Amino acid sequence: MVERKEISKSVLKRLPGYLTYLKNMPEDSPAHISATALANALGMGEVQVRKDLALVSDGGRPKIGYLREGLIDDIEQFLGYDNTTDAVLVGAGKLGCALLGYQGFDEYGLNILAAFDADENKTGMDESGKPIYTLDKLPLFCKTHKVLMGIITVPSVHAQDVCDMMIANGIKAVWNFAPAHLEVPENILVQTQNMASSLAVLSMHLQAQMKSKD
Amino acid sequence: MVERKEISKSVLKRLPGYLTYLKNMPEDSPAHISATALANALGMGEVQVRKDLALVSDGGRPKIGYLREGLIDDIEQFLGYDNTTDAVLVGAGKLGCALLGYQGFDEYGLNILAAFDADENKTGMDESGKPIYTLDKLPLFCKTHKVLMGIITVPSVHAQDVCDMMIANGIKAVWNFAPAHLEVPENILVQTQNMASSLAVLSMHLQAQMKSKD
Repeated sequence: MVERKEISKSVLKRLPGYLTYLKNMPEDSPAHISATALANALGMGEVQVRKDLALVSDGGRPKIGYLREGLIDDIEQFLGYDNTTDAVLVGAGKLGCALLGYQGFDEYGLNILAAFDADENKTGMDESGKPIYTLDKLPLFCKTHKVLMGIITVPSVHAQDVCDMMIANGIKAVWNFAPAHLEVPENILVQTQNMASSLAVLSMHLQAQMKSKD
Repeated sequence: MVERKEISKSVLKRLPGYLTYLKNMPEDSPAHISATALANALGMGEVQVRKDLALVSDGGRPKIGYLREGLIDDIEQFLGYDNTTDAVLVGAGKLGCALLGYQGFDEYGLNILAAFDADENKTGMDESGKPIYTLDKLPLFCKTHKVLMGIITVPSVHAQDVCDMMIANGIKAVWNFAPAHLEVPENILVQTQNMASSLAVLSMHLQAQMKSKD
């Protein structure tokens, strides 16, 4: 891996795409892949892909490209997938439980340790065997386990309170699934994953299509 | 509801946020809410909220604001949540099954009818009682049920093939969870929900935080 440079969020957001493509290539693919081939396969600009890869790997050779396995290792190491990040999740509703039970996060190095909910009727074990505690247990849990990432899946009116509580207990990165704007101090990063917004855009497109048929 | 105007994607993406906030307000809240109050609550600009609401509702009164229940109805109607959109999902892996079993989509008017997978070992019923069929059943199913929305949760190398297959069978809107770029004809809309990208940004932030502590 190359020495770590400052890297923009937009580059960072593209890296998982390269990684997924590389990891899912057929086993009988050539051992090497060029930035050009990768760019073509993903429908992206060649120059952008070349620059992105150069930021995370020094394994590229002119006219040969990158050794695929080496490039996979470099991107994974860069993204920290080889280190596990422990997280807590607050809001054990339908979406929260779906995320809690989703084992696919393993491959991204994310490990959700436990969920928390204000409703004590929701406490216990979820189907995947992970614990769900009442929200008042969050502070001690975060401190004991030195948790740095928090996932918010509560209704949006409660999202800011939960976010504040997380930050007060040492959380530095918040993955927010509530369609709410969160105010955080400068050293805290929030990524909001607004599924309802995507759905709204898709539904509206379908309505417009139906209308044009009338 | 006001007469339907052309509305930008960015407005559309904000509407679910307003809706969720309005629907989650305490029962004893005042019956009216102003654009200013909503803007403050969501940490957004007052002018933007005022303009957005005026696009979907003509119920706003000077100094009084909107009747909350009426505004909720107007936004829901605008977003088509009162009409159910049927969808199919392709890729019955971990994420696919999590989405298939997620009942929270109901409130957005999304109904996933069935899942499809190339692996016949995955066929049968999922835990929520929804059917999973082999992929060769997709064409007939889409035509019989007049399905317009497709959800892609296959590995990114297969995403374009699945997308092409969906479009060939009448799908007009694609919700793509594979970190892949999809080429589609002009009248088809794709929304890509890249969870891995969000995670990458968060993980990198944590790595940077740890480094600054060393």
